[in-house]
Amino acid sequence: MTTLHDPDLHSFASDNYSGVHPEVMQAIVDANGGHVGSYGADPYTARLSDLVVEHFGEGSEIHPVLTGTGANVASLQALVPRWGAVVCAATAHIYTDEGGAPERLGGLKLLTVTTPDGKLTPDLIDRQAYGWGDQQRPQPLAVSITQTTEMGTAYSPAEIRAITQHAHSLGMRVHLDGARIANAVASTGATLRQLTRDAGVDVVSFGGTKNGLLLGESVVTLTEDELPGITYIRKMDAQLASKMRFISAQFIPLLETDLLVRSATHSNAMALRLRDGLAGLPGVEVTQAVEANAVFVILPKEVIEPVRAEHRFYDWNRSTGEVRLMCSFDTQEAHVDALIASVAREIEAAA
Amino acid sequence: MTTLHDPDLHSFASDNYSGVHPEVMQAIVDANGGHVGSYGADPYTARLSDLVVEHFGEGSEIHPVLTGTGANVASLQALVPRWGAVVCAATAHIYTDEGGAPERLGGLKLLTVTTPDGKLTPDLIDRQAYGWGDQQRPQPLAVSITQTTEMGTAYSPAEIRAITQHAHSLGMRVHLDGARIANAVASTGATLRQLTRDAGVDVVSFGGTKNGLLLGESVVTLTEDELPGITYIRKMDAQLASKMRFISAQFIPLLETDLLVRSATHSNAMALRLRDGLAGLPGVEVTQAVEANAVFVILPKEVIEPVRAEHRFYDWNRSTGEVRLMCSFDTQEAHVDALIASVAREIEAAA
Amino acid sequence: MTTLHDPDLHSFASDNYSGVHPEVMQAIVDANGGHVGSYGADPYTARLSDLVVEHFGEGSEIHPVLTGTGANVASLQALVPRWGAVVCAATAHIYTDEGGAPERLGGLKLLTVTTPDGKLTPDLIDRQAYGWGDQQRPQPLAVSITQTTEMGTAYSPAEIRAITQHAHSLGMRVHLDGARIANAVASTGATLRQLTRDAGVDVVSFGGTKNGLLLGESVVTLTEDELPGITYIRKMDAQLASKMRFISAQFIPLLETDLLVRSATHSNAMALRLRDGLAGLPGVEVTQAVEANAVFVILPKEVIEPVRAEHRFYDWNRSTGEVRLMCSFDTQEAHVDALIASVAREIEAAA
Amino acid sequence: MTTLHDPDLHSFASDNYSGVHPEVMQAIVDANGGHVGSYGADPYTARLSDLVVEHFGEGSEIHPVLTGTGANVASLQALVPRWGAVVCAATAHIYTDEGGAPERLGGLKLLTVTTPDGKLTPDLIDRQAYGWGDQQRPQPLAVSITQTTEMGTAYSPAEIRAITQHAHSLGMRVHLDGARIANAVASTGATLRQLTRDAGVDVVSFGGTKNGLLLGESVVTLTEDELPGITYIRKMDAQLASKMRFISAQFIPLLETDLLVRSATHSNAMALRLRDGLAGLPGVEVTQAVEANAVFVILPKEVIEPVRAEHRFYDWNRSTGEVRLMCSFDTQEAHVDALIASVAREIEAAA
Repeated sequence: MTTLHDPDLHSFASDNYSGVHPEVMQAIVDANGGHVGSYGADPYTARLSDLVVEHFGEGSEIHPVLTGTGANVASLQALVPRWGAVVCAATAHIYTDEGGAPERLGGLKLLTVTTPDGKLTPDLIDRQAYGWGDQQRPQPLAVSITQTTEMGTAYSPAEIRAITQHAHSLGMRVHLDGARIANAVASTGATLRQLTRDAGVDVVSFGGTKNGLLLGESVVTLTEDELPGITYIRKMDAQLASKMRFISAQFIPLLETDLLVRSATHSNAMALRLRDGLAGLPGVEVTQAVEANAVFVILPKEVIEPVRAEHRFYDWNRSTGEVRLMCSFDTQEAHVDALIASVAREIEAAA
Repeated sequence: MTTLHDPDLHSFASDNYSGVHPEVMQAIVDANGGHVGSYGADPYTARLSDLVVEHFGEGSEIHPVLTGTGANVASLQALVPRWGAVVCAATAHIYTDEGGAPERLGGLKLLTVTTPDGKLTPDLIDRQAYGWGDQQRPQPLAVSITQTTEMGTAYSPAEIRAITQHAHSLGMRVHLDGARIANAVASTGATLRQLTRDAGVDVVSFGGTKNGLLLGESVVTLTEDELPGITYIRKMDAQLASKMRFISAQFIPLLETDLLVRSATHSNAMALRLRDGLAGLPGVEVTQAVEANAVFVILPKEVIEPVRAEHRFYDWNRSTGEVRLMCSFDTQEAHVDALIASVAREIEAAA
Repeated sequence: MTTLHDPDLHSFASDNYSGVHPEVMQAIVDANGGHVGSYGADPYTARLSDLVVEHFGEGSEIHPVLTGTGANVASLQALVPRWGAVVCAATAHIYTDEGGAPERLGGLKLLTVTTPDGKLTPDLIDRQAYGWGDQQRPQPLAVSITQTTEMGTAYSPAEIRAITQHAHSLGMRVHLDGARIANAVASTGATLRQLTRDAGVDVVSFGGTKNGLLLGESVVTLTEDELPGITYIRKMDAQLASKMRFISAQFIPLLETDLLVRSATHSNAMALRLRDGLAGLPGVEVTQAVEANAVFVILPKEVIEPVRAEHRFYDWNRSTGEVRLMCSFDTQEAHVDALIASVAREIEAAA
Repeated sequence: MTTLHDPDLHSFASDNYSGVHPEVMQAIVDANGGHVGSYGADPYTARLSDLVVEHFGEGSEIHPVLTGTGANVASLQALVPRWGAVVCAATAHIYTDEGGAPERLGGLKLLTVTTPDGKLTPDLIDRQAYGWGDQQRPQPLAVSITQTTEMGTAYSPAEIRAITQHAHSLGMRVHLDGARIANAVASTGATLRQLTRDAGVDVVSFGGTKNGLLLGESVVTLTEDELPGITYIRKMDAQLASKMRFISAQFIPLLETDLLVRSATHSNAMALRLRDGLAGLPGVEVTQAVEANAVFVILPKEVIEPVRAEHRFYDWNRSTGEVRLMCSFDTQEAHVDALIASVAREIEAAA
């Protein structure tokens, strides 16, 4: 087989349109050859486990899984008993984009709250956090937040701490969907540990695919007593890789070198450059703070399709003309500048 | 990172102790770089889809997934409605080794039949295939067979045809768990198509991981009318890879070249060599026909641990001393001969 | 045993605080004695089936079940395949009051819409009815409406017809949660058939408990081809009564005589009398149209607890002082007048 | 409505072909009238709770539900976490007769053991009780036994104690499906408490329908710390009756008077009389010990249909001619003698 695609093509559609970072690919190649134990009994998973303790703190444990949906469902199933419900933002990926997996695969009831920017607060949580002991209400026993959010915004450690303190005071536990947690590390300057364990989070979906991995997600448990059942839940959710060495090996360069932060810092910077270039154009309105690798922006409707013909991206809200522009570890300044130029040119042409 | 394991180590524990075939690794590397559509909208998945039509016949469709458990559960959920039950052998992987995923993730009731060799027959199916219309009995609407079986035996096309004809005459559909279907192709001399579509099978879990892939399984639908809902089921079962190009790309060399058959023929040959070398030793009894890459054999109990100290493998039945010895695409004649020598030496030492 | 409660006590808390209508109790007694077939093979279920055809139309079938939650979940599971999602009002009982049963027991994803009065419309449905073919979105394949609604409002046959025509044009089917459909018959003057089958509804949760039954709910299928699997789903949802004759027998007087309409007309009339008596009092605001047996009303906050000490009822919205007052088949004019007098007196006392 | 069936008809088909015991019917009538709290907040449920403490011991709690399937599934869901599996006899009602509800509704994996007489023992349990910590095996965390069994046999308190001690020593908990526990009380002479709490059982499905109730099953928790979540599980399994007073009231005469034992003693005695009458007839073979209200007996094949034309019963094993004959609280000696005479006459006629 030869390469079937144009490796020079770039898009702003999603950070999973990009491929594998070269350092990650090298880790995969290095892990090949010979025989090692399957299902996690291998030296790469052992090394990764050590790195996770270094980064998230003593007692943390990583359980590699295969999809972000799998990580979220398994985390939440381990966090709450059968009768537990989960409070989340109405824009949360678990509620809107996972094909009903939390409900169907996980038997989880989600209690949603509308937010302005994808971020929960103690007050917003209270809109759904009630009714304990009412046998007819699914019991709110967990909160799930996304970091960075589906709206490209980031929680500060203090904001997370406020949420976890409030939740814990109510007997609820806290899950953090960290499919893009690397972007939050880069954006807030806080470490993985400061954003999770030190901020009181109980379990993290620690993602890698959106930050340059081929395929690699994980559940990281943070509390002293590991969440009971997570290993069994991983299997019964069909998330247990047989040749796990290749999943674990990909995470190693992220945590052993500065790669996690380096890639995320770069993609965040590209998003800021894109925002700065677009913000001044006539008829363009940036709709969300840019605190990660996403830019949400309203474009004049007549320019959307001409621009899309050159640079692929997704609509967010067709009625307003809002679109989502995602940057990746491999987005180059030239890609950003070309998109800005394209928008500018089409606005002028439409004027 | 550098390599953390000894690439010269070999074992007979499982075909998933082995790594990635070099030609598959090259396909992964070739698929990297640039941006392509995610979730299957990429040229590698398109190419794979064409190859599947070539190999399985017009109208076949492939849906790449992430684990064998995922492939089996999604296939069966697509095959039967909510109230359907599945007849399978008591040794079937779906019943014994998937952590209850079919029941819990899939809501599937399994109706098991004891078999001598892991293979179902029309008569054996009839032990569970009854009670249609009885509102209190889970409705037997599908049969699941494993090819090659968990006991290392293979179905001939005629045996599969007998099963599918019987099942279809009863209004039941047929799923084939093909985690090791390549070994059956090698063993029977029949093609993928002859073993599935032409034999009347309705849906296949077409596996690659046990035959040299890094991670790659799939659901292949064979009937004219694609199974409704398989794409939605794949997502709600957390089996949809975002960077699918890397899953699809691995399957391409299997089907574009002779790699699928070449690797399986080799591992089967190693199993036969192993059987032949062990069969004549005193106190050794081969317990199953060797029609794939597994050898089931009773060893004198006192030799098991000494041999295992050099060559890792799993017990199958501790009370009888039966062990399972698995060969892989990368098992060498020297590995086999060393194991035989080890067993012979220990038997002599124990005499 | 003797009676342990005060049979003269009345409340406005819920129509399930009331007991069994004497004519229904007689039907239970009449069905007793001797042996009849279990699980529905009895003459009472046969008679009920005939009556359902008379009332809902040729081809209708009734499947008695045990709870309203069971009726709703079983109906929806029969209506949509595993990957189907259900559009409903955010106030729908299935979403707010069933302990997550639709999600957990049924594997159903609910897509909610905020409404002013508990009623869906084609436009409101469109807020969630999109994304068919998008493998990451639960597929909207059904609409569920409640008649009369959780807000005490009623759909006219024309309003239902508009919904079903719209839904059907989108490939969606329509479920009607008729826990209080009798109140709608009384309120709109339309027949059961006009409100369901003739209006295009596909399946009805036809309830009796809130209208004077001891315990009796049911799934009534209306389409020519009975919903496949409803009988198996009923059993796997633990909704199959062994001595079904006693469930079926209770429904017979509802449909064989005018009892269904008589009881509902009475409870509706009591609600109107209550509304009329309260509406003119200072500081009292009726918040919803009274089209069934419920009155939603804001009371001056200082009178709520004094009134409640005499007449039990539930808060609806503590922040506004809105309460829900339910009337039953056995609510008497004297009960209503006493409540009105109590409110009036407390308002005066607080002035 | 008038009575639609012949109240003089009797059968040996099932104890749920019978109706409601007059004392139970009176309790229902007595509980009617006026308003009481719904969903269990009523004086009948309170009284029943007290009686359950008297009969099962301090700390016991009853949670009325609607079906035996519901009681079993809710009990087991409360007993084991999401990843727990349940060891049971292959003849257990939960495995064979509940439409897959444990798996589908409960997400429970059942691990079955073949038994000669429907009874588990510590040794039989060990055939499935292994593999704790193996992430690929559903974790055996509970044992479920049926008392009296589906084969009409009864466990002695000592036999139950042996099971619970063994199970507890393995970290497993014990559920007792007591759909016919009253027959075991009558048969063994032990009390409800001796057969459950004192024998180490953790949770009981305490049934009433097969012993003269209209409809009434329950979950009785026995351990000091009530099973967490049972009330929420009851609701999410659609087993929460709104007018619960009428379920609870039926149980009161069972426990307040000698009715539970009286009815069961009678039906057991009828079964013994039937056994004694049949055992001596030529070609008749009683196949199971008669320790409850069931007689399993092989009849000469040519007499089965002629006898069935007069006395309805079910086949158990068509190949051997084994049938199941069930007696009820309302089976009379004359019914038994008529059946014996019918068999004797047909055997003679066939000779």
